[in-house]
Amino acid sequence: MPSKTLRTDTETTPLANGSLGDMSPSEFRKHAAEFTEWIIRYLEHPERYKVLADVAPGDIKAKLPGSAPEQPESMESIFSDLDSIIAPALTHWNHPGFMAYFSNTASKPGILGEFVSAAINPNAMLWRTGPAVVELEEVVLDWLRQLLGLSADFYGLIHEGASLASLVALAAARESLNLRIREEGMIGRTDLPKLRVYASEHSHSSIDKAAIILGVGQSGITKIESDAEFRMIPDALERKIEIDLKQGVKPMAVVATVGTTSSTAVDPVKEIAAICRRYNIWLHIDAAYAGSAAVLSEKRWIFEGSETADSIVVNPHKWLFVPVDCSVLYCRKPDILRRAFSLIPEYLKTNEEVRNPMDYGVTLGRRFRALKLWFVIRTFGAEGIRERLRYHIQIAQDFKSWIEESPDFELIAPAPFSVVCFRYNPSGKKLHPAEIDKLNETLMERVNSTGEVFLSHTKLRNCFVLRIAIGNLGTTERHVKRAWELLQEHSGTPRSA
Amino acid sequence: MPSKTLRTDTETTPLANGSLGDMSPSEFRKHAAEFTEWIIRYLEHPERYKVLADVAPGDIKAKLPGSAPEQPESMESIFSDLDSIIAPALTHWNHPGFMAYFSNTASKPGILGEFVSAAINPNAMLWRTGPAVVELEEVVLDWLRQLLGLSADFYGLIHEGASLASLVALAAARESLNLRIREEGMIGRTDLPKLRVYASEHSHSSIDKAAIILGVGQSGITKIESDAEFRMIPDALERKIEIDLKQGVKPMAVVATVGTTSSTAVDPVKEIAAICRRYNIWLHIDAAYAGSAAVLSEKRWIFEGSETADSIVVNPHKWLFVPVDCSVLYCRKPDILRRAFSLIPEYLKTNEEVRNPMDYGVTLGRRFRALKLWFVIRTFGAEGIRERLRYHIQIAQDFKSWIEESPDFELIAPAPFSVVCFRYNPSGKKLHPAEIDKLNETLMERVNSTGEVFLSHTKLRNCFVLRIAIGNLGTTERHVKRAWELLQEHSGTPRSA
Repeated sequence: MPSKTLRTDTETTPLANGSLGDMSPSEFRKHAAEFTEWIIRYLEHPERYKVLADVAPGDIKAKLPGSAPEQPESMESIFSDLDSIIAPALTHWNHPGFMAYFSNTASKPGILGEFVSAAINPNAMLWRTGPAVVELEEVVLDWLRQLLGLSADFYGLIHEGASLASLVALAAARESLNLRIREEGMIGRTDLPKLRVYASEHSHSSIDKAAIILGVGQSGITKIESDAEFRMIPDALERKIEIDLKQGVKPMAVVATVGTTSSTAVDPVKEIAAICRRYNIWLHIDAAYAGSAAVLSEKRWIFEGSETADSIVVNPHKWLFVPVDCSVLYCRKPDILRRAFSLIPEYLKTNEEVRNPMDYGVTLGRRFRALKLWFVIRTFGAEGIRERLRYHIQIAQDFKSWIEESPDFELIAPAPFSVVCFRYNPSGKKLHPAEIDKLNETLMERVNSTGEVFLSHTKLRNCFVLRIAIGNLGTTERHVKRAWELLQEHSGTPRSA
Repeated sequence: MPSKTLRTDTETTPLANGSLGDMSPSEFRKHAAEFTEWIIRYLEHPERYKVLADVAPGDIKAKLPGSAPEQPESMESIFSDLDSIIAPALTHWNHPGFMAYFSNTASKPGILGEFVSAAINPNAMLWRTGPAVVELEEVVLDWLRQLLGLSADFYGLIHEGASLASLVALAAARESLNLRIREEGMIGRTDLPKLRVYASEHSHSSIDKAAIILGVGQSGITKIESDAEFRMIPDALERKIEIDLKQGVKPMAVVATVGTTSSTAVDPVKEIAAICRRYNIWLHIDAAYAGSAAVLSEKRWIFEGSETADSIVVNPHKWLFVPVDCSVLYCRKPDILRRAFSLIPEYLKTNEEVRNPMDYGVTLGRRFRALKLWFVIRTFGAEGIRERLRYHIQIAQDFKSWIEESPDFELIAPAPFSVVCFRYNPSGKKLHPAEIDKLNETLMERVNSTGEVFLSHTKLRNCFVLRIAIGNLGTTERHVKRAWELLQEHSGTPRSA
């Protein structure tokens, strides 16, 4: 093969200067087949890599040239660097031992969806710039809405991530107050009440970030206390709202979390929704992780009361086997989203009576993300998705039962889904809390350094807590058992399993 | 092949319940090869489709099932729908006759980059969650920085689009004022001056959107008048700043546009930067489209003066052959970005002394977008990129010369890159301005309805203006000539070319 892969295929792309094309069909066919094999090897044998790579900051950079090549390089040289420099220095999210954060899966149908979507490369800012893109998104998000049991008046749109989706939702909440903030801003206005966003103390940091960006500020966020199971206490919420109202503070939004990031606690949506209705406050539900579980009839309760919520975010790229990125914002008041965001410059004006996605969020350009979600839902089928989620929950619950049965470990949170929070606390020893924290930190480092599994931590009630998160299609009972063995071995506990 | 594509490949993925896997290696190989052939056909023969599909709103939706399938469907059925329902209803961004908005290209190396990136599926929120992802991004963005001739102290990060990148930049500008807006918000504070964002009257709507989101409001944006070539007038900017300062208004940011969306005008960065230095104002440069042209020595002048700018956005997904999405924000003050955005929850705390991307923007989860940019820059080489940009500019300039030579068409803006703004204005007829507008609108509709080309419009000096934008690798002299023929035919002008 020639060293320059970039030459014109004159049969198919007639070019004026003979060099404009990027890769001939036959070369593309060859390289696509090579990458397909690379992907197959990568996905089928992830365990040849340590989950966390043995690299130090700067290691990868040191191996790469400091500037771009002047002349074209062959795909072979890229291929070789991918194998020797990039792959060994990845954190392997699709390793079955990846049990940190929220583990996820780029399923093969999802990967193929991205492949096709990149080739079509539409920009779905307007219906006109991608009729099938915009309509398929509407259809697939309606499928997902039905699968999750959400009411029919929720209008969905895909965003990059939940941070952005929640920002969009809270911007709409601000606009819904009719305070002319869009037009006149927030500064120096004597007619504006102080605004407040309420969220549980376990809510995601993206809510704080959104409040900061929107000019509400950290002082405009009230964190509501939670109960013994880390769920927001509705009475505490109502008390804070009452106090605020008496002081002339205007509630802007309440954020209920369905599946908190630390412990996957589910705030009581029904009670919170009732309070929001009573006080006429925008209710945003952050169900980025756990929302997907509502496909299961036995988990459908998590969205009970959501029919009067204003917005809900669910991330199919977390627990629905779709590659990152795909975060869905459902909103019952698209007209308010539109009021918050629509700005149509002359060059984007069209005549169609349609919903143009650019009017409902921050971004103008948008990829064809609905395609991968369509591929995934169709190839798995609703039943296939349910079966896999049930299995993830089942193996996480197995792990939970081992923790509960062990005298040397303790469960720290209820674990309603596929994440278990626990810690090592050896029986018979009266340890200082700081010592227990240190023991667990060391234990996590030791277990992670084996490269067989990757666990992450959090803090709950100010204690250092270990987390095991199941969400990858490759993760099976065997991997969870192995994680348990490693935890026992490295804590010096005799194996009980 | 069996009707259910989802079955376990027991040789490679041992599973507890025998059905967790999504697609066997051999099935993935088969389908990847099928999609590769589909992509080859799609990209090599785009002209079998009309650029704009003959569809009406709702047409696609009507052909799709109203709810998700319960049981898995075969990849064959998806394939068939892709061909019969989706592909014919797309606006074909990679059609060589796509000359609307800013036309772009998903080059084949870029498509392969997305394919691999979807399979690796890392979430590059932290260095720890993808060491190679974070470092490759740093390296490739430094390559690009050098290619564009930007000074060495610009730190780059990839965002979804320029709307988001500019929001991030303006949030940093707000934070740079040290007004404790992050902590205390913007409402009811007697210590806060009114803030102002200055941008040319031709700046992109995303600047307005960012100001709205950030609580500055539409009244906090001052549009600066432009000269005969649609470039911001520095003196007019300075006058507005002076007036504001006298009235106690605090300048928050100046946005200079390098390549406006309507006419690709280049604001005089050097003069604007001098004003920003004098008054100590954050300078953000929106070079989303035209920034890529700085790879050419003869276009390097567009960034003259940028060395004291605070932030610059350039979109490789516009004119650098990278599939959507890839927008780069360069910032000389990453510490301020960090102050504006960093919020590190306990569960994401790590020990490494590194730059974690999540601290520098809105989003937490981030795809491996650097990979496709790396593939593209390496396979094209810097020279290959320059050659193609020069060719695009050359064929656009050819078109411009035809317009200039025609007695019945007129050039409306200077066209420094590959976009030409023009209109039909038949000689010898004294038409009312509204009549000329109507003629051009009708002409655009007629030309677009042929399906051979897709042109878009804008308004300049309140006149309806046609635009031709060259940015696709498949577009050659032949296509530009054909567009010119169609414009002449459908306006009733005798062919002059």
